[in-house]
Amino acid sequence: MFYTLDILGTIAFAISGVLVAIDKKMDLFGILIIAFVTAVGGGTLRDLLIGNTPVSWMKDITFTYVILASAIFAMLFRGKISYLRTSLFLFDTIGIGLYTLVGIEKGLSAELHPVICIALGTMTASFGGVIRDILCNEIPVIFRKEIYATACILGGLIYFLLREFPIKDDYVFIMAGIVVITVRLIAVKFKIALPTIYAKEST
Amino acid sequence: MFYTLDILGTIAFAISGVLVAIDKKMDLFGILIIAFVTAVGGGTLRDLLIGNTPVSWMKDITFTYVILASAIFAMLFRGKISYLRTSLFLFDTIGIGLYTLVGIEKGLSAELHPVICIALGTMTASFGGVIRDILCNEIPVIFRKEIYATACILGGLIYFLLREFPIKDDYVFIMAGIVVITVRLIAVKFKIALPTIYAKEST
Amino acid sequence: MFYTLDILGTIAFAISGVLVAIDKKMDLFGILIIAFVTAVGGGTLRDLLIGNTPVSWMKDITFTYVILASAIFAMLFRGKISYLRTSLFLFDTIGIGLYTLVGIEKGLSAELHPVICIALGTMTASFGGVIRDILCNEIPVIFRKEIYATACILGGLIYFLLREFPIKDDYVFIMAGIVVITVRLIAVKFKIALPTIYAKEST
Repeated sequence: MFYTLDILGTIAFAISGVLVAIDKKMDLFGILIIAFVTAVGGGTLRDLLIGNTPVSWMKDITFTYVILASAIFAMLFRGKISYLRTSLFLFDTIGIGLYTLVGIEKGLSAELHPVICIALGTMTASFGGVIRDILCNEIPVIFRKEIYATACILGGLIYFLLREFPIKDDYVFIMAGIVVITVRLIAVKFKIALPTIYAKEST
Repeated sequence: MFYTLDILGTIAFAISGVLVAIDKKMDLFGILIIAFVTAVGGGTLRDLLIGNTPVSWMKDITFTYVILASAIFAMLFRGKISYLRTSLFLFDTIGIGLYTLVGIEKGLSAELHPVICIALGTMTASFGGVIRDILCNEIPVIFRKEIYATACILGGLIYFLLREFPIKDDYVFIMAGIVVITVRLIAVKFKIALPTIYAKEST
Repeated sequence: MFYTLDILGTIAFAISGVLVAIDKKMDLFGILIIAFVTAVGGGTLRDLLIGNTPVSWMKDITFTYVILASAIFAMLFRGKISYLRTSLFLFDTIGIGLYTLVGIEKGLSAELHPVICIALGTMTASFGGVIRDILCNEIPVIFRKEIYATACILGGLIYFLLREFPIKDDYVFIMAGIVVITVRLIAVKFKIALPTIYAKEST
């Protein structure tokens, strides 16, 4: 089941990359690359930082094929992709929840401090989008708008909190993942953003 | 002989970095750095992803000296460098051919899937230019214009195709390298670009 | 003592990140990230290139706490932080001196060539600022203005020069560090910049 969720998340991330790249008038190759880095960027950074090489996507060819297929699909049906907006947003949110917890667990296997594990989980979930925006010459959107990383951090805190209780590891994983997903859904639904430190008129 | 080609490619990559950096009015140090990352960026990313550390250029000081010398040369003669345009373009193209195949072979030694090896080869050849453009605050040129990565990918496909035949490894390497070089030369000569998915008027 | 200097440098780097991020109107999370990458970016790149993983900041949680505290402090008192400008500049300069030499010594432990060690030291000291500027969509300031990397390189040269003499390792470290710090202080005081290769009017 985790594998299926991972594939769904990969699809959503890849398609979000395609849409940004098309916006920037990139050529076919550029679009594929942006789809790719958006989908695997977070996991790659995580693997590099903890020294898990060759990095994950290099060891399972399935992800490469899924990304290529998603990218081609998104290019062909780009005019109609807005009909899929809700599904894509759901996949994306599931991906974020899953990647956050995968990142945390990889940090734990490397015997890192819980705070570092949460940072690693957040990076796994968000760095793909960051590198997508850098390659497209934009200030990364997660630094400026949405509650996104905040959902990852909250989920991570809940994860370590639940581990203090006698709950089976798998359930802790799932419950914390649901927290990430729920926080993000609620934040987007009710347009909740992080408080800003700027005065209203200057934003 | 491969070593000589490697040096020629390094020279061409370093000089291309210098020219872009001068265009951006960088200072001496900035120009050197851009020359450096353009020349070694691709190989560094490859080495990091497969866990081959310390990365290659750190283990052979020759490349550092070649890059420094090329950068100083390019700064001194920048007014006249356009006379060398053809040689530089040739060196650059040779570099791309060589780096693509070196990347592929490193991927094979790490026992990676052929598709991943081709991706690794393409990164080795093109990531230096990508990071050069990011540091100069531009959308990487290879995402938008030239047939460049396409040549690498074609060469990689030919490499794995030829390996199916009873041909000596060295010849496979050379023939695939020649494919990369030829595709790029033909594409530039006849101004062939990747098909775009955008309507004519919007480009 | 080195540990204290390291903390001071981290504080200065983190605060410099906060100030740039505020300038870009980032949200709370964005500001924290920029503070973080500015503070740990250089050491992270160094560790990745020589294969020292998990990277340093992941192994000592203190730095994460120092960065968080500095960032929160800087956000709360951002209106008044200009009163601390001199202290921050001093901390920053101390950080650069220290990081340069830490980078060089890590390079030596990995048995790298002196020139590569100096490059590694310079990266450790300067890459945090580079990645801060890239994330904020600016051409890195050290490529264009201040004598910064030059101070690191000079300090590195002095380090390897002094090692030829019968001086205790610790003193060599300290003396070379003082060179980095002094060069930078003098350069800023007297507004010395690297010579540019551009004609006056075009700058």
